[in-house]
Amino acid sequence: MPADTLRIRGLKGIPEILPGMNLVEKILAALELAGISAAGEAEPASRTDAIIVVVAQKVVSKSEGCLIRLDNVVPSAQARAWASEYQRDARLVEVVLQQARRVVRMDRGILIVETHHGFVCANAGVDTSNAPAGTVVLLPPDPDKSADGLRHVIESALCRQVGIIISDTFGRPWRLGLTNVGLGVSGLSPFIDYRGQVDSYGRSFQATVLATADELAGAAELVMGKTAGIPAAIIEGFRNGPAEGSGRELIRPAEEDLFR
Amino acid sequence: MPADTLRIRGLKGIPEILPGMNLVEKILAALELAGISAAGEAEPASRTDAIIVVVAQKVVSKSEGCLIRLDNVVPSAQARAWASEYQRDARLVEVVLQQARRVVRMDRGILIVETHHGFVCANAGVDTSNAPAGTVVLLPPDPDKSADGLRHVIESALCRQVGIIISDTFGRPWRLGLTNVGLGVSGLSPFIDYRGQVDSYGRSFQATVLATADELAGAAELVMGKTAGIPAAIIEGFRNGPAEGSGRELIRPAEEDLFR
Repeated sequence: MPADTLRIRGLKGIPEILPGMNLVEKILAALELAGISAAGEAEPASRTDAIIVVVAQKVVSKSEGCLIRLDNVVPSAQARAWASEYQRDARLVEVVLQQARRVVRMDRGILIVETHHGFVCANAGVDTSNAPAGTVVLLPPDPDKSADGLRHVIESALCRQVGIIISDTFGRPWRLGLTNVGLGVSGLSPFIDYRGQVDSYGRSFQATVLATADELAGAAELVMGKTAGIPAAIIEGFRNGPAEGSGRELIRPAEEDLFR
Repeated sequence: MPADTLRIRGLKGIPEILPGMNLVEKILAALELAGISAAGEAEPASRTDAIIVVVAQKVVSKSEGCLIRLDNVVPSAQARAWASEYQRDARLVEVVLQQARRVVRMDRGILIVETHHGFVCANAGVDTSNAPAGTVVLLPPDPDKSADGLRHVIESALCRQVGIIISDTFGRPWRLGLTNVGLGVSGLSPFIDYRGQVDSYGRSFQATVLATADELAGAAELVMGKTAGIPAAIIEGFRNGPAEGSGRELIRPAEEDLFR
């Protein structure tokens, strides 16, 4: 059931994450700073509700060491040719191609690929922003597993159920601008399924399955920001959970995709 | 700049909207019920912030009389043939085709079209759920104009700046599940543009324009629900506004679309 009121806060106090750093420890410290800890809360009434923590993929990747030093990359002939045509860094193009299961479009300097996970996005999610000099950050190899790991530690520490979404901002067809979506999910269903429920006229919904994990990820982005150093957010008041679920369920099988 | 805390509430007390009903009056009454009126507020500190009201397209369309009685529709031969192949209502197929500028896919009983507005969605947004018996609801002919209209009345009544998003739930390529997006926008920019800003390593962002109006619409959907009779939501605490902006800016020009 939909919640009455959602409260969405950016989690402050998470330092710059470097490879090997204990991310979940930093998230727990930031949660405590936000009044959420096992010891007690500013608003104990909300204690019974599940909370959802949305974490930017970037810090998950960095803590897991998913960085590549460009100096160590030897670009293929294909990467070199394409990079030179569009004034791109051939080493970066090579990294993107290595992360791709399939190239969707490679045109006008833009590389849209399907990653090994099955995500379709620009540059395979490989990112130079907020990365240490000379390196690029890859997507985590298994965002659902990363989400599971964060969830179990946070649930144990807080003694309550927690949903985790690992998010990234992706472009999309048909519409301009990026939106945050859920790559990894743990502790909640990525969907709310209205099929079989009836509307106010007694008619049942036909094809209404909402991608709530993506909507939650997008909502969290509104308080995270790219430049403000807030790589995580907490969502309180969402009542559709806890449940088992994963981010990989959000990937539309290519053979069923009539939307493009 | 991103906000620290967003509060998102479903607006209760809006009755079933029928053609010709004064929607904005009902929204104002619901806002007052939620403690938001010109006379005074439960939390006067928030008075200086802009608020955003997200309104489901369905009630906007109904109040504007954008309904079609299926008994009055004469299906074309094309509509009849396709409907009979997939056991669909030929009159409904006819209505969808009339709302389409272009058919994107017409396969396996699913009709994805580009509407006259330029939105790419299933069934041209024509919907039978929450519609009076024997009728279907169309998208508003000009969602930005509808948003402007709501905004001006609400701003006058509340004596404060208001952003309006008229939303609908659309499917999308690559990913499963529907998400709420902004069709009509007034009083806020649909985007936050990070281009030229610098990350924590001093590097400037290249292509990071976020479709915040879609993220706000998605966030609102989480409290609106399809079956709960809550066709509008209020978002407080979003600091990126007010501004001029429109929903039509969110439509990606087909010739620039490399994402599919």
